[in-house]
Amino acid sequence: MNTNMEKPYVVGIDIGGTNTVFGIVDARGTIIATDSIKTAGHGEVEAYADAVCKPLMKLIQANGGKEKIKGIGIGAPNGNYYSGTIEFAPNLPWKGIIPLAAMFEERTGIPTALTNDANAAAIGEMTYGAARGMKDFIMITLGTGVGSGIVINGQMVYGHDGFAGELGHTIIRRENGRLCGCGRHGCLETYCSATGVARTAREILTSSTEESLLRAIPSEEITSKDVYDAAKKGDKVAKQIFEFTGTLLGEALADFIAFSSPEAIVLFGGLAKSGELLTKPVKKAMDDNVLNIFKGKTKLLISELKDSDAAVLGASALGWEIKSDK
Amino acid sequence: MNTNMEKPYVVGIDIGGTNTVFGIVDARGTIIATDSIKTAGHGEVEAYADAVCKPLMKLIQANGGKEKIKGIGIGAPNGNYYSGTIEFAPNLPWKGIIPLAAMFEERTGIPTALTNDANAAAIGEMTYGAARGMKDFIMITLGTGVGSGIVINGQMVYGHDGFAGELGHTIIRRENGRLCGCGRHGCLETYCSATGVARTAREILTSSTEESLLRAIPSEEITSKDVYDAAKKGDKVAKQIFEFTGTLLGEALADFIAFSSPEAIVLFGGLAKSGELLTKPVKKAMDDNVLNIFKGKTKLLISELKDSDAAVLGASALGWEIKSDK
Repeated sequence: MNTNMEKPYVVGIDIGGTNTVFGIVDARGTIIATDSIKTAGHGEVEAYADAVCKPLMKLIQANGGKEKIKGIGIGAPNGNYYSGTIEFAPNLPWKGIIPLAAMFEERTGIPTALTNDANAAAIGEMTYGAARGMKDFIMITLGTGVGSGIVINGQMVYGHDGFAGELGHTIIRRENGRLCGCGRHGCLETYCSATGVARTAREILTSSTEESLLRAIPSEEITSKDVYDAAKKGDKVAKQIFEFTGTLLGEALADFIAFSSPEAIVLFGGLAKSGELLTKPVKKAMDDNVLNIFKGKTKLLISELKDSDAAVLGASALGWEIKSDK
Repeated sequence: MNTNMEKPYVVGIDIGGTNTVFGIVDARGTIIATDSIKTAGHGEVEAYADAVCKPLMKLIQANGGKEKIKGIGIGAPNGNYYSGTIEFAPNLPWKGIIPLAAMFEERTGIPTALTNDANAAAIGEMTYGAARGMKDFIMITLGTGVGSGIVINGQMVYGHDGFAGELGHTIIRRENGRLCGCGRHGCLETYCSATGVARTAREILTSSTEESLLRAIPSEEITSKDVYDAAKKGDKVAKQIFEFTGTLLGEALADFIAFSSPEAIVLFGGLAKSGELLTKPVKKAMDDNVLNIFKGKTKLLISELKDSDAAVLGASALGWEIKSDK
């Protein structure tokens, strides 16, 4: 963290399909001011950039002016760190390759970097959260999909093209694997995301006649939250769903450990807050499946970033890393 | 490569189960002098270290003296870069944790670093071979087992404990996978090593009645070289064995790409010299199985290091990386 007294703040911008949230953050990870706009409805991306930067500059002015800002970090789906572009993001209104970092830099006069949301979460965790001081860890984000951010030797892994760390799209079931949104079969994301949990629920409810609180909900409307609530009430089927989800995730993590032998794996996102329902089977499967020399070495941690702040904090952490010669 | 005029050479030492080969190497990767001893038969490891260092120092004296040597690099099974130790290597005569780098440093007065053989091969490839100038690549060694060395952001990946990069022990077949020497089932190594190829040959010959040149060889004696020779003669079963091996390897590589998005994957070792018999199905399976955003981006290369020199060259390359304050 290259903080200094003259530039004590960074800006974090989280671009989601629905909202764009931005905030000013200090070196301890406190969000000192925040605001948001809707991501859609601005027509061209130029108009969108104006719509973000206007209230952002107002916020900056109200907090000491842009001299106080070390950099702006943006977290966005399909964000490419090397080029500062968003590339073919299916859930954003703009098509093709969008040079968003340059557009924000132009409008604010502040150095701007951009990366994908899972990488931003990993940088946030390393700067302010459960991975403080760690040089080797893997962040797994369990949301609508499964994302990942990998840190090795204290550096984010971007790969030769800026897109490394798609662990949600490694194959966990090669035979009869579930169809993934990416067009392939058996991706980790189809089992261990929130939507994967709902899918497992529908499968188990169809294939068994076991009684369950979940049968009161129309099959297509079941969410991972419903499964969590039922499991907390002792529902056997719901517990079985978590068991299955955690086992597959643990099997996958055992293979990730063979790759980079991280000090810790940090789970983040809605599902990660399921407590022992998830972590118990994950730990067991990790331990049952990991290569002997790694056994018991890699910690399984839950993110320490508050959910509502995490995305902005993660993006903001990128702001500290911007080289001043940029 | 921190070569300079005063210290123009490094020493590479390759410790194998049978032989220990060592050589003096210049900055272009030319081995200017080499010698070897048997690894076993020295009793204690202290006696072994003496037995290597005596002829090694003679070699160094004959080539300008130790002032010319920047460092010594050692490649050894189960070598740990961080600690400079060999830890519980099943194929070496010494048990437990052996502080080999320190022992060589003491005897030679030259800074010494140590890593495992696959990592040494990767450093060699980056310094002298097919991966020159690359910052992100994965080396896969296809020998008796399957090893790997991973380079990210221009640095070897050692992980938090020094043992990262065990890609031969990621699981490629979760259901009914072959039993591995590590005690688990379905490891990549059980399919895509030289012994894995021989195993596939025995399986296919048993399960089919198809004619094959391989039927002339007693089943337990079939080697991957036999399969290669038969395939080159057009033997259908032998070609099918390569097809199967290459397909599984390509599937695995597609997942490795999702991890670190390397510029290239470099294949090394006996099997890697099978030419299109292996690379054609590997490339096809990589392409069929890789996530869309990575498609066509990662090159598949064959090592450019001569087999007889590769181990010593790889180990020697580590010698250039030793910090002078070590």
